[in-house]
Order: sequence, then structure tokens, then C-alpha cells
Amino acid sequence: MSIFSRISINSDNFMASAVGEHGIREEDLIAQGDRLDGLRERLRIWRDGKEPSFLGLPFQTDLDEIKTLGNRMLKRFTRFIVFGIGGSSLGGNMLVQTLGRRNDRRRVRFYDNVDPITLESLDRIDWNETLLIVISKSGNTAETIAQFLTVLPRMERELGAQCVHEHVLVITEEPKGALQQIAERLEIPVIPHPAVGGRYVVLSAVGLLPAYLAGVDIDGVMEGARAMADRCCQKDIRENPGLWQGAAQYLLAENGKTISQWMPYSDHLTLVVDWYRQLWAESLGKHDPQGRERGLTPVSAKGVTDQHSQLQLFLDGPSDKQFTFLTSPDLLTAGERIPTRFADLPAVKPLVGHTTGELFGAEFLGTRETLSRRGRPNRTLSLLQGDAFAIGELIILLEVETVVVAELMGIDAFDQPAVEESKVLTRKYLDEMKTIRGL
Amino acid sequence: MSIFSRISINSDNFMASAVGEHGIREEDLIAQGDRLDGLRERLRIWRDGKEPSFLGLPFQTDLDEIKTLGNRMLKRFTRFIVFGIGGSSLGGNMLVQTLGRRNDRRRVRFYDNVDPITLESLDRIDWNETLLIVISKSGNTAETIAQFLTVLPRMERELGAQCVHEHVLVITEEPKGALQQIAERLEIPVIPHPAVGGRYVVLSAVGLLPAYLAGVDIDGVMEGARAMADRCCQKDIRENPGLWQGAAQYLLAENGKTISQWMPYSDHLTLVVDWYRQLWAESLGKHDPQGRERGLTPVSAKGVTDQHSQLQLFLDGPSDKQFTFLTSPDLLTAGERIPTRFADLPAVKPLVGHTTGELFGAEFLGTRETLSRRGRPNRTLSLLQGDAFAIGELIILLEVETVVVAELMGIDAFDQPAVEESKVLTRKYLDEMKTIRGL
Repeated sequence: MSIFSRISINSDNFMASAVGEHGIREEDLIAQGDRLDGLRERLRIWRDGKEPSFLGLPFQTDLDEIKTLGNRMLKRFTRFIVFGIGGSSLGGNMLVQTLGRRNDRRRVRFYDNVDPITLESLDRIDWNETLLIVISKSGNTAETIAQFLTVLPRMERELGAQCVHEHVLVITEEPKGALQQIAERLEIPVIPHPAVGGRYVVLSAVGLLPAYLAGVDIDGVMEGARAMADRCCQKDIRENPGLWQGAAQYLLAENGKTISQWMPYSDHLTLVVDWYRQLWAESLGKHDPQGRERGLTPVSAKGVTDQHSQLQLFLDGPSDKQFTFLTSPDLLTAGERIPTRFADLPAVKPLVGHTTGELFGAEFLGTRETLSRRGRPNRTLSLLQGDAFAIGELIILLEVETVVVAELMGIDAFDQPAVEESKVLTRKYLDEMKTIRGL
Repeated sequence: MSIFSRISINSDNFMASAVGEHGIREEDLIAQGDRLDGLRERLRIWRDGKEPSFLGLPFQTDLDEIKTLGNRMLKRFTRFIVFGIGGSSLGGNMLVQTLGRRNDRRRVRFYDNVDPITLESLDRIDWNETLLIVISKSGNTAETIAQFLTVLPRMERELGAQCVHEHVLVITEEPKGALQQIAERLEIPVIPHPAVGGRYVVLSAVGLLPAYLAGVDIDGVMEGARAMADRCCQKDIRENPGLWQGAAQYLLAENGKTISQWMPYSDHLTLVVDWYRQLWAESLGKHDPQGRERGLTPVSAKGVTDQHSQLQLFLDGPSDKQFTFLTSPDLLTAGERIPTRFADLPAVKPLVGHTTGELFGAEFLGTRETLSRRGRPNRTLSLLQGDAFAIGELIILLEVETVVVAELMGIDAFDQPAVEESKVLTRKYLDEMKTIRGL
């Protein structure tokens, strides 16, 4: 069993020994291990592929198939558009932005909304050069269908109706879903969406095909994911980062830290948080068996920018937050050096001779220490920029943490029972649209 | 006194009559009016310019000066870069993105971080074509100085040292600040930063000059701002939207709704929330006179996208949120019409004949009604896309609301006492950088 890792996880500042009364005690954390026996058993079953699950994906997804298809598409097209929303876009977009090669990631673009003004930019697409990937697990997602059906007439005009199917790929699961039906009628190839919930599905074609098209090392991602999946099956909670980190966040939430405040110090890593927000919010925000409203609110800030926007609240506001920093040590050695020229000025002197990367790192360390001194529990996840292996580890770590918190709260991490009502009401309002004049 | 308005404010769903126990009662709201007598007096003093303040800016800022300068720069340059962080960039960036003309807003770019990888893109700037605007109220902001001083040698190489001053504008207040000193030595023109806190300063050259360079109708913005400033000086709390909306949010916070969850339904309006987050977090997140930790956490989501990410939590999670929707009724009539072609499929049928804009609107109405049915207090701010007058109103409304909540909490809306410690620690870590090998 591999214990090799390229991600550093430091949760010392979650502990009472570091941050006082707002932190947690090691013995309480270890005690959660017993409550997780059942889940640990299920994690092994999932990893070993005995039941379909997110934890089996790193072992089961056929990368050769994705690469063969991807290479074919890369030969034929220079632009790639993804229509999808929620789990159908967040994971792929994260991989493209964090790991895509600079010039390659630009050629993959995600449309995850139906704002009609934003959709106008679809008018300017040269469809001869473009592949469209339409993703919906159910095949019935209203937004995705609307995007696809409104763009279809234009594609047919530009390409000829008989050629459209060469410019579209569909990823869907449900054979009776509208997307599958439309694909069959138009002879569009369909890639099966695995039987895994949308927010846990990034390590399948859903996330990996767009990633591969942007030059992402998907082998590296999957190696890292497998390594972390193995670590998260370890028996001893002290050796198992998923159990340890999940239980720690659960205990902090029980102690009133119900906002999970993320603060990536790395512009490239901000989309990790966008992906994580769905995972965390949809999995944990629901009623427990006693009918209590549970859930932690995931919030994104950005270092250093939001030191000048949110830090005052983080330091002096209510102690309702637990913090996760996400950063890259190699940023320390990057950047231009600040010249000595104005060193006589008091505000310039401390900066002189340092790189912008060193300033970036010092700001992070200063912010983290200030938060810790004020008793604000925080942890740091640290990985090299563009390290596919580490991102693979991070994905599995955060997924397992989520499942662990759900288990300890006594809720189902894999359903989303509340959103159906909103979909019914959307249809009702669509029916009434003719009589609606304003918002 | 003008009562003309182009922004619709609907807070019916804040009320107990609409959302039950989690809402507030009109009589409690009206009763807050008496507690706000002192503030109302100050609001008038501020508006009338008897003390320097954000509320005087719409009446005092010299637009002709900004336009004359802007026109000169537009003749000479095709690209504009702004260095600034926090209040020095968020307001300007909001105006550029919400009101800039499509092709014009691309020529203004804000750098609000010192991530060294992001800063690499500065290498590709053609300085012959570019004006740099450097903004810092104190003139001592480490990040902004670092950006400026690392870019300066490249500018001198490209332009010749004697020409750099023609390509830079500085906006700063403090005569002893480093930025003022550097500007004087390099003969760079300085525009005074008004004596108003950075997060309240958007309606001065700080926000309006970048906006004007992106084609924003800054006259319209200021007209709207003046109209709302007048409304927010009304005596009767029922006629005064700043007092009414601020007091309502305060009462909701007292009732446990301490997360201010924004959900713009309009991609163009998302940056309004980024600007608002600083205003709200830095103004309200602090100790009250009794030493209690106060503050509401501002959080941004995006409609409809985050219906597929956060809505489950909003509906079934803890009742710790109050919601603000921000939308544009004209989106309803925009967008392509969904063709009838696959109307036999059950998931397509309800969509057929509707535009993507109608779907967008129906999703918003469905989400709002679902939240209301679950007793989640919410309000809707509605304005036409690209309406400068309405954005001016919105800016003043949100600023006054913030000040009202601070007054009712008994805290100072204009300081940020906690962030100094983090700056001291940043300098300490910079000194130690040679010994730091990782993060």
C-alpha cells in the first residue's frame, strides 16, 4: 500500500494546543475513529470496486479510452466547448485551470449558466473548428438542454445537418433521458456517465476528457488519486488523512465553526474551491435523522487580495469559521525582485531585495499566524503548482473528508432531496411566463 | 428632493408575514427608526458636505476633471492597467464590468494580487500603448508598491527613463506615503485620494477614472447616487430605503441570520458582490463596546449555476442566512428561443418556445419561491442591465445599509483595527525569508 504523497497536510492549528478553546483535542479526535468503523469498511468496498462509487473511479476509469478519443479530437478540432452545470462542469473546469498547459487551457471553455447575455458569445464560435461536449448525468438538466437546443440550429446551418454529429459528444447516464434520446436521433456518440453522483464524478470522462484536451497529465492525477484512496483506507485514524481531517472538521463544526472558510494563496488554485463548494454544500446541507438542519457553509476568499477585504472580519468577527489555506511552496521562489532604488522610504525598505513570491509567502505566513494567535482554527494544504499527482490526492482527500463528516452527522452524503421542489416551481413559472412582466 | 428611482427593492420576503418565524415584524423594524435619529442627522451632514464622507462624494467629485483627464488618456493610450488592492480596485472593477461597453471594458485590467505567476503576464504588456494607474490611499500598501517597483525597470527600458512619467498616474492621499514620494521623484502626476476610507471611495477618481476609460456613463452613476443619497436622508424610516433595509438586516442578524448570502442572477452583476463583500466584512466584523465579536459574513453565489451547487444547503441546511437576490428584468426578453423539434421528450416539452432568458427568469422565481416556502428570509434588488443610474443608486444604498447596521450594533463602520498585526507579521516573515524553505 502506497504511502507516498506530494501534498502536505498540516492541521496543527486545528488543535486546542495551538489555538486554545476554539480548537479540538487529540483524544476527542482519536475517539471518533470508533464511530467510523462502518464507514471505513465501506471505503474499502468502494475502493475495491465491489460497489460503484467515487473511490473506485481512480482504479476503474479507462484512461486509454479517454486519451485515444482525446487525441482524435485534438487532431480534428482547435476549440472545445463544454455545456454542463454543477458536477458536469466544476470538476473539469478545476482540472483545466489548475493543471492545463497555459496555451492549451484557453481552448477549452465551459458554459455553466443560462444568462442570455453570456450565451450571446456562442454566436461568435467557428463551429468548423469546434467540438461541443454536452454533459448531464440525468440527461434532463433544463439548462444544459436549453444551451444545446438553442445552439443546434446554428451548428446545422454552419456545418450542414448531416455533419453535426461529428462535432458533438454527449456524456450521460440515463437511457431514457432527453440527452440520450436526442443523441440517438442525431447519431451523436454517447460516452457513459458512471453511476456516481455528479459532484463526485470528476475522475471519470466527465472531468478527465476536458482536462486531457487542455493538456492535463491525467495519468498523474489518477496516480495521486489512487495513492490517497489507499491512505484513506488505513485502519488507524492517525494514519488516515481522510478520517482524521474529516473528523477534525466535524468536531470544529460541533464547536460552532460552521463556516468552512477557504483561502487559497495561489490564483491557479481558486477553482479547486469552486468545485469543493458543491461537494461540501450539497453533501452536508440537509436534515439528519432527528430532523435537525445540518450543514457547513463553504466560503471562498483569495489570498492575499482578500486580506484587504475579509481579514478584519476573520480576526475580530464571530468565531464561526474554520479555515483551510491552500498554497504552493514553489511560489516563494518565483517572481521579480523588488529593486533597491527607493530603499530610503520606510514603506519600501522591508520589501527591498525580496521577490513578489517572497512577499506573497510572507503575507500568507503573517495572516496564518495572526489568525492562530486570535484562536481561529486553521489548516494548510500545500502542493506544488501544476502537480497533477498532488491534485489527484487532493480530490480524493476532500471527497473522503466530506463523506466522513456526513457519517458523523448521521446524514446521507450522496443525495440532494431539497432541490426537486425548485425544479417543479421553475416549470410552473415557465408556464406562466407570458403573464410575467418583471422580476 | 428627488424620489425618482430606477432600482426596485423588494424586501417583502424578509417579513414574518411571508416567511414565518425566521422573518421580522414591521413594528420591530419601524421601532429601529428611533435608534437611528443620531445617524440620520449625520447622514444629512455628510450628504451636505459639512464633513468629508462617502455620502458627499456624489455631490463633490469633479466629473469634468475626470473626463478631461480621461479623454486625454484615451487619445494617447489603448490599454490601461490598474495596480491596487481592496478599495483601490474593487469599486473600479465593479463599474468597469457592470457598466463598461463590451469592447471598451477589455482595455482596462486590474491587478489586485501579488501571485508571482499571475504577475508574469505583465511581461507581455506593450508599454508604449499602456497607461498605468497606481492607487493606494496610504501610499504604503506593500502589494501595490511591490507591483509598481518590479514593473518600473521594464517600463524604463522600453520607454526610456525620461518618458515613464507620461505613462503613469498615481492616486494617493498621504503626502508622506511612499507612493507620493516616488511620484514626486519621478515627476509622475498625482490625483488626490479623497479623505474617505478605501472601501467607501468608489464614487471618486479611484473608481470613476478606470470606469470612464472603459466607457462607463459616470454622469449617470453620479445622478443615481445623488438621488439615493437624498432618499437615504428622509426622516421617516418607511420612506428611507437605507434605514429600512439596514435595520431589517440587523434584525435578521440578531435573529441568527448572520450569513449575508448574495445570489446575483446576472453574470454581469457578480462583481457588485465582490465590492460589497469588502464593504460589509471590514465595516461590520469587529468588537462592539461590550467586547463582543460582531459581524455578518458576506457570501457570494451565482444564479442559476449555484442552484446546482449551493441550493441544497440553502434549503435544508441551518437557518443562518439572509438572502439578497440581484437581477435584471430585461434578461427575461433576451436570448435564443428553444425550438420545438424534440418537444415529444418530457424534459424538453416545458422548455419549448421559451427563450433562455425566460428559463433564466423562471429559475430565479422558482428558487426564490422555494426559499420563501422554507422560511428563508430573502429580498430582491432589481435593475436594468447596464443602467448607470441604478448602479449609482445601488452603491449608495449598500453603503448606507452598512453604516446603519454598524450603528445598531454599536460599532464604528469606518475603521479596521485588526489587520495591522498581520502587516507587522508579514514584515517579520519577510525578514526571515532566507531561512524559510516551505509553506
